[in-house]
Amino acid sequence: MKPNKKLKLGLPKGSLQESTIKMFKKAGFNIYVSERSYYPVVDDEQIEALLIRAQEMPRYVAAGVLDCGITGQDWVNENDCDVVQVCELTYSKATSGPVRWVLAVLKDSNIESVKDLEGKRIATELVQVTKKYLKNHNVHADVEFSWGATEVKPALGLVDAIVELTETGSSLRTNRLKIIDNVCISKTQFISSHSSWSDLWKRNKMQTIALLLRGAIFAEEKVGLKMNVHSKNLKKVLSILPAMKKPTVAPLSTKGWYDVDTIIDEKIVRDLIPKLLKTGAEGIVEYALNKVIP
Amino acid sequence: MKPNKKLKLGLPKGSLQESTIKMFKKAGFNIYVSERSYYPVVDDEQIEALLIRAQEMPRYVAAGVLDCGITGQDWVNENDCDVVQVCELTYSKATSGPVRWVLAVLKDSNIESVKDLEGKRIATELVQVTKKYLKNHNVHADVEFSWGATEVKPALGLVDAIVELTETGSSLRTNRLKIIDNVCISKTQFISSHSSWSDLWKRNKMQTIALLLRGAIFAEEKVGLKMNVHSKNLKKVLSILPAMKKPTVAPLSTKGWYDVDTIIDEKIVRDLIPKLLKTGAEGIVEYALNKVIP
Amino acid sequence: MKPNKKLKLGLPKGSLQESTIKMFKKAGFNIYVSERSYYPVVDDEQIEALLIRAQEMPRYVAAGVLDCGITGQDWVNENDCDVVQVCELTYSKATSGPVRWVLAVLKDSNIESVKDLEGKRIATELVQVTKKYLKNHNVHADVEFSWGATEVKPALGLVDAIVELTETGSSLRTNRLKIIDNVCISKTQFISSHSSWSDLWKRNKMQTIALLLRGAIFAEEKVGLKMNVHSKNLKKVLSILPAMKKPTVAPLSTKGWYDVDTIIDEKIVRDLIPKLLKTGAEGIVEYALNKVIP
Amino acid sequence: MKPNKKLKLGLPKGSLQESTIKMFKKAGFNIYVSERSYYPVVDDEQIEALLIRAQEMPRYVAAGVLDCGITGQDWVNENDCDVVQVCELTYSKATSGPVRWVLAVLKDSNIESVKDLEGKRIATELVQVTKKYLKNHNVHADVEFSWGATEVKPALGLVDAIVELTETGSSLRTNRLKIIDNVCISKTQFISSHSSWSDLWKRNKMQTIALLLRGAIFAEEKVGLKMNVHSKNLKKVLSILPAMKKPTVAPLSTKGWYDVDTIIDEKIVRDLIPKLLKTGAEGIVEYALNKVIP
Amino acid sequence: MKPNKKLKLGLPKGSLQESTIKMFKKAGFNIYVSERSYYPVVDDEQIEALLIRAQEMPRYVAAGVLDCGITGQDWVNENDCDVVQVCELTYSKATSGPVRWVLAVLKDSNIESVKDLEGKRIATELVQVTKKYLKNHNVHADVEFSWGATEVKPALGLVDAIVELTETGSSLRTNRLKIIDNVCISKTQFISSHSSWSDLWKRNKMQTIALLLRGAIFAEEKVGLKMNVHSKNLKKVLSILPAMKKPTVAPLSTKGWYDVDTIIDEKIVRDLIPKLLKTGAEGIVEYALNKVIP
Amino acid sequence: MKPNKKLKLGLPKGSLQESTIKMFKKAGFNIYVSERSYYPVVDDEQIEALLIRAQEMPRYVAAGVLDCGITGQDWVNENDCDVVQVCELTYSKATSGPVRWVLAVLKDSNIESVKDLEGKRIATELVQVTKKYLKNHNVHADVEFSWGATEVKPALGLVDAIVELTETGSSLRTNRLKIIDNVCISKTQFISSHSSWSDLWKRNKMQTIALLLRGAIFAEEKVGLKMNVHSKNLKKVLSILPAMKKPTVAPLSTKGWYDVDTIIDEKIVRDLIPKLLKTGAEGIVEYALNKVIP
Repeated sequence: MKPNKKLKLGLPKGSLQESTIKMFKKAGFNIYVSERSYYPVVDDEQIEALLIRAQEMPRYVAAGVLDCGITGQDWVNENDCDVVQVCELTYSKATSGPVRWVLAVLKDSNIESVKDLEGKRIATELVQVTKKYLKNHNVHADVEFSWGATEVKPALGLVDAIVELTETGSSLRTNRLKIIDNVCISKTQFISSHSSWSDLWKRNKMQTIALLLRGAIFAEEKVGLKMNVHSKNLKKVLSILPAMKKPTVAPLSTKGWYDVDTIIDEKIVRDLIPKLLKTGAEGIVEYALNKVIP
Repeated sequence: MKPNKKLKLGLPKGSLQESTIKMFKKAGFNIYVSERSYYPVVDDEQIEALLIRAQEMPRYVAAGVLDCGITGQDWVNENDCDVVQVCELTYSKATSGPVRWVLAVLKDSNIESVKDLEGKRIATELVQVTKKYLKNHNVHADVEFSWGATEVKPALGLVDAIVELTETGSSLRTNRLKIIDNVCISKTQFISSHSSWSDLWKRNKMQTIALLLRGAIFAEEKVGLKMNVHSKNLKKVLSILPAMKKPTVAPLSTKGWYDVDTIIDEKIVRDLIPKLLKTGAEGIVEYALNKVIP
Repeated sequence: MKPNKKLKLGLPKGSLQESTIKMFKKAGFNIYVSERSYYPVVDDEQIEALLIRAQEMPRYVAAGVLDCGITGQDWVNENDCDVVQVCELTYSKATSGPVRWVLAVLKDSNIESVKDLEGKRIATELVQVTKKYLKNHNVHADVEFSWGATEVKPALGLVDAIVELTETGSSLRTNRLKIIDNVCISKTQFISSHSSWSDLWKRNKMQTIALLLRGAIFAEEKVGLKMNVHSKNLKKVLSILPAMKKPTVAPLSTKGWYDVDTIIDEKIVRDLIPKLLKTGAEGIVEYALNKVIP
Repeated sequence: MKPNKKLKLGLPKGSLQESTIKMFKKAGFNIYVSERSYYPVVDDEQIEALLIRAQEMPRYVAAGVLDCGITGQDWVNENDCDVVQVCELTYSKATSGPVRWVLAVLKDSNIESVKDLEGKRIATELVQVTKKYLKNHNVHADVEFSWGATEVKPALGLVDAIVELTETGSSLRTNRLKIIDNVCISKTQFISSHSSWSDLWKRNKMQTIALLLRGAIFAEEKVGLKMNVHSKNLKKVLSILPAMKKPTVAPLSTKGWYDVDTIIDEKIVRDLIPKLLKTGAEGIVEYALNKVIP
Repeated sequence: MKPNKKLKLGLPKGSLQESTIKMFKKAGFNIYVSERSYYPVVDDEQIEALLIRAQEMPRYVAAGVLDCGITGQDWVNENDCDVVQVCELTYSKATSGPVRWVLAVLKDSNIESVKDLEGKRIATELVQVTKKYLKNHNVHADVEFSWGATEVKPALGLVDAIVELTETGSSLRTNRLKIIDNVCISKTQFISSHSSWSDLWKRNKMQTIALLLRGAIFAEEKVGLKMNVHSKNLKKVLSILPAMKKPTVAPLSTKGWYDVDTIIDEKIVRDLIPKLLKTGAEGIVEYALNKVIP
Repeated sequence: MKPNKKLKLGLPKGSLQESTIKMFKKAGFNIYVSERSYYPVVDDEQIEALLIRAQEMPRYVAAGVLDCGITGQDWVNENDCDVVQVCELTYSKATSGPVRWVLAVLKDSNIESVKDLEGKRIATELVQVTKKYLKNHNVHADVEFSWGATEVKPALGLVDAIVELTETGSSLRTNRLKIIDNVCISKTQFISSHSSWSDLWKRNKMQTIALLLRGAIFAEEKVGLKMNVHSKNLKKVLSILPAMKKPTVAPLSTKGWYDVDTIIDEKIVRDLIPKLLKTGAEGIVEYALNKVIP
């Protein structure tokens, strides 16, 4: 370890901020953000963090002002910067999935596909990506930068269509918009500049952070499940457990009974528990995990 | 599974909202509420959720506008609706216990029991239940609907008594009120309409939700407890463990030592730990649980 | 147990409040704070809690108005009260470490050490401690009580130096201050009055609370770590595990494989996981703990 | 004046509160509202004020708990209380006009008039007035009390129609509702109980308050207008001034010029000023008024 | 005028801030306060303003860090500083009158006068003034500095009495306290250091500010009143007008009628208007004033 | 008047919104903005208002979506749109003056003029105007769009310079920036599209709005001043009154005395009043104005 070495890490200010800090905490890095300060404090002396907007992150990483940063694939594309993708992180603002930038028009509009946009006016915060998308479809349209409130603009008669971010779709529904197409599906990215990636100490540090972050994200979708099973049901129970990690089987203090402990997808628990009860499992207990490294 | 089937589920807007969404999350259902939208998004395609006030929930479930919903027993009684009680859920706004609607008067009032209310004036949000309560006690009094700030009304001289919700009693104390009687003890309820309950697919779906919710609620009151025990103390330690689930006993890497792992009531931990230490248990570790299905 | 006995416990209102209540919850005591009330409700009938400022806590404990309370060592010193230290609790407002009161001056000031403060003007909320500190260094300076916004005063030209609280240092950085010296390193304290400490029932109650609180705090820094290990790697893996608690080794359902489960320092996880992967551990899972009693 | 006499005056808590206090201030009564207190302090020793909801005001005035109060005509009707109308005050929450309770349905609903509501479901906060309105039209429908968010209920499919308050109509527009009919046009009222009205001292006090309040409200719609006019244009200018108060004509320091000063409707200023300029008025100055008593 | 000369003016941060800035605006000085900045911008190049707490103002003025400042008499006394009183300004936080520091105890306490405080415990923010007050009454009691929430301390059993600020008394009423005595009646003060007062340019600048501030404050309590009066009533009307400024009498455009315009105390308007109406005045109009310099 | 004619007016959402609505109110147009609605209601049936960002206003006016709108000259330049300037309005967000976009660098930077920016990196929200400015100075530099927090970027090391809005300069001071040059001085503009300007009815309507708005703005800087003067001093007093409007001189009820009433610049009042007092004026009264049309 070289004590003087520092990794300059950009953290996304704004909508991704809270979920990013939470994920780093689970990965083992405590980040303290003081109000009014752009320098969060990380409990790792080798990391120097800076809070900047996700939109601007690729620019400052590419320029070498930062070694690396967390941002969305959407903004990497929009800035069209040459950066290294250290790893993809499957979390976003509200959900654990990617965000979508969709092409949307008023529900009662007769625009049905991207082809109908010829000569129309489109508002978006993602101007370059939208222009490239239109070019790929051989459509000519005015794409204008929107300073906010994009979703109300079609109803106000200001534009014909928008390209806007959506996670759950409910804001589109509120503004009576229908989705015509996906323009960009974007996951959170951990990116590095080329020069920092060439520095072995920095690359190794980034890879460790990535390993732990992925472990934390993976753990979000997993749970531990324990249950009591009598020896006569053990085989059946083990056969329906889709374990990533092989189940542990340990004897209970009561003879003939075993504790089965395993790690499974949180998503399937709601279907699995009724089946386990039928197969004879008892005392089923689910517990949360901080990190899962397969 | 019939992919086109949908269960219309009402979630309580307001004071119960946060604890309900937290409980569904532990039960395995992620609910995303967008500001300004009444349609929360649930990560289960078979559920269509709607946010409405707990006060109005029984009315819309009874009318069949919703298949089922989460509300309080108090509002089921107040609306006097004919609904099916799928299951009782022991959580409320602030604590894990039920809420109480109490009859309260000023500390220095000479009203001592419900009998002293003859001819008096009572403010409450729970008008029908209060009238029924008075009728049961053969007392005639004016019951008026209170639009809020009920607890300050006796001190302002506007009414003689109130029937008001209390969880911890501290708001009553602040307003110098004394409790005369309990009018209604209310737990959170998962209710269904009769017609939805007759639909087997819907009933099965509701029963699965209820099973998982109960598991999540039960887990709130339980913890996992692990400890290292030498073989010579094992019997004594096992004898004082009031396990719901039989304890697991597994050998440690050090010879003669065992790991004892069990699930117990969180409430008794504070008394149990000193005893365990005396019996020779070491390295006691407590961990939280997501779900417990006995 | 004497049911009529009550322990009067002071909880710190303000910046320490949230972390204290969280720690008591992990220790097994649920505390409900109602807005506008100074009497939090604790789910232990033997405890009567009161919310007061940490600054004033030592004064009211020493005077016997309260049996015991949670405050900082800084305020015990400032009030110069004769109280019993039941135990030290290593948590503070934002981080898990102690807080520091530092002597700070403007970055471009030519004050380099406490000696340069002779005849200068110092603003602080911690007047008595600061005066004692100066006396120990044989420095004569004006120490004035600051009613807030202490950190901006040097830049406004109002004072030459300040003695101010810092946890992460970022607020000092924002105001372009440099730290000259530590005046007081302060941990959170659980204090008692002498008379309450002499009462055996009260002392026993306080010691139980202290045991559980320490268990909860200790658990903050620990995590559980489980992994699958083949018998051929078991020895190597066990040799690099710095377990506080001896690891549990239990057979998996797949022959030749074992589950290794242990409790370690959260701090070392980020270095340990890469090593474990190299030694042949698989399916590494980290989980959080509520209490750890060694 | 009897110094011991007090007039108990109810002020409306909530949406009317701010505009009411502002109007009393212009009328010459300063009212200080402390957070958390229901007793505003009035700088008139003969008045004792109490803050309660406008909805409940008629009830407590009719019952004699208060001598008089400010509320809306809507709530007088809803409570169906026998009170004295001291005077009508033309101000409301946002505008200076009355508020309207309108019957509204979804824009694409085929309900076109009150007659189409037979057998339908209507949500409102104004249940009694709505029932009376339906009865007058010989329509039978379910009227249910709405606990809030009334305007979103038709779109959620919970009810067929609503009766809701509107001042500017923009909230209805946002929720895609169309107005079918006016159910109640309501102005702010100053009401008294019969017994207080019979007390001559109280009646006189209420009449003075009413006189000053009306003066303050009247002043909201008036402005003072001054201008310089040469003697040759004086007649023409005076002829187009629609003065409530006869204009003052005073000589300026420059010979042949006059100052014309008058009080007119604020509404017509925007049309009048261009005309005055054409007629030769110069240096036109508009100023605000506190009270106008015709 | 010396363009390079600057007057360093301290403005009170916190509860007096808003009313002070409003008063300076009326006096003709626009003060712009940016969030996060301690340097308000004044549209007078000769003034350099600084925002600091009223409690600390006398200290920094006496030390010459500031030339002058706005604070309360209470804090001048508490700091016991030797400053020049430029002028007294009759406005405070909420009302236009002075603030009072009162000695208060619980309503049901048997402490009836300051004499009963012997050996008791008193909490206050105004420690030095309170000690002097007790000394004047030959009473020995513990006076402790209160860090806030002073008014709830008697009810919590922490102290026997408090010395606390009150403007309208409603916060005392809420906490069931009764007032025993006035400890300090305090008006807002414009203070200067002795050395700045000796500088003729600075003294002149301060006196101009004081003249304009007093004009603005005086205007708060005055209004302009105009009315139409027929010549036959003119004498009677003039006889009941208690004008500070002699009334202007100007002819109206209608023969025989006059406009009477005068400046009177706002306080008497509510009694005067009914009398004027009886005397034959018509079209009475009240208007507000920015400054009144008698 | 053609009742069906409508003028589509864009009002600036955001920082200019409050001051714009206040100015329209003084001009005689009441604008009601409902939360969540983009359609403010104006009490003039000929106006249909829409709230959109000032940045986007020129674009939508130029495109004819709106007839006219209020925005800043800065955004007219940035959008480089061909619009008609109806009139200039001298008010801005905080002060009554124009806003400045300044080129700023860190205080300790060695960049001293625009010439030193060659090859540097500049962040701004006003990209096009900044590029034009650099071109005029023959400087080549990277101009990047800033998504916010522009002022902290130089200190974070992200850019070398910024072009940023300033009204009072205090935010620049807080971030230790020095101003190198003015890039754009911008006043608020009332703009129209060419086609709407050609429509006589619309042009006339816009000119009336402009006349009244200018009257309201002008009144911000003026006050009315009245005083009592004895005939012997009248000439001297009149000679020092710099009246826009010739002063009115009217006799008082006391013989030999006159009332002098005039309109003057608010800015000079603070110097004028001491002079007037010396010249013998008494009972000086200042009052505010709503509109001044010279």
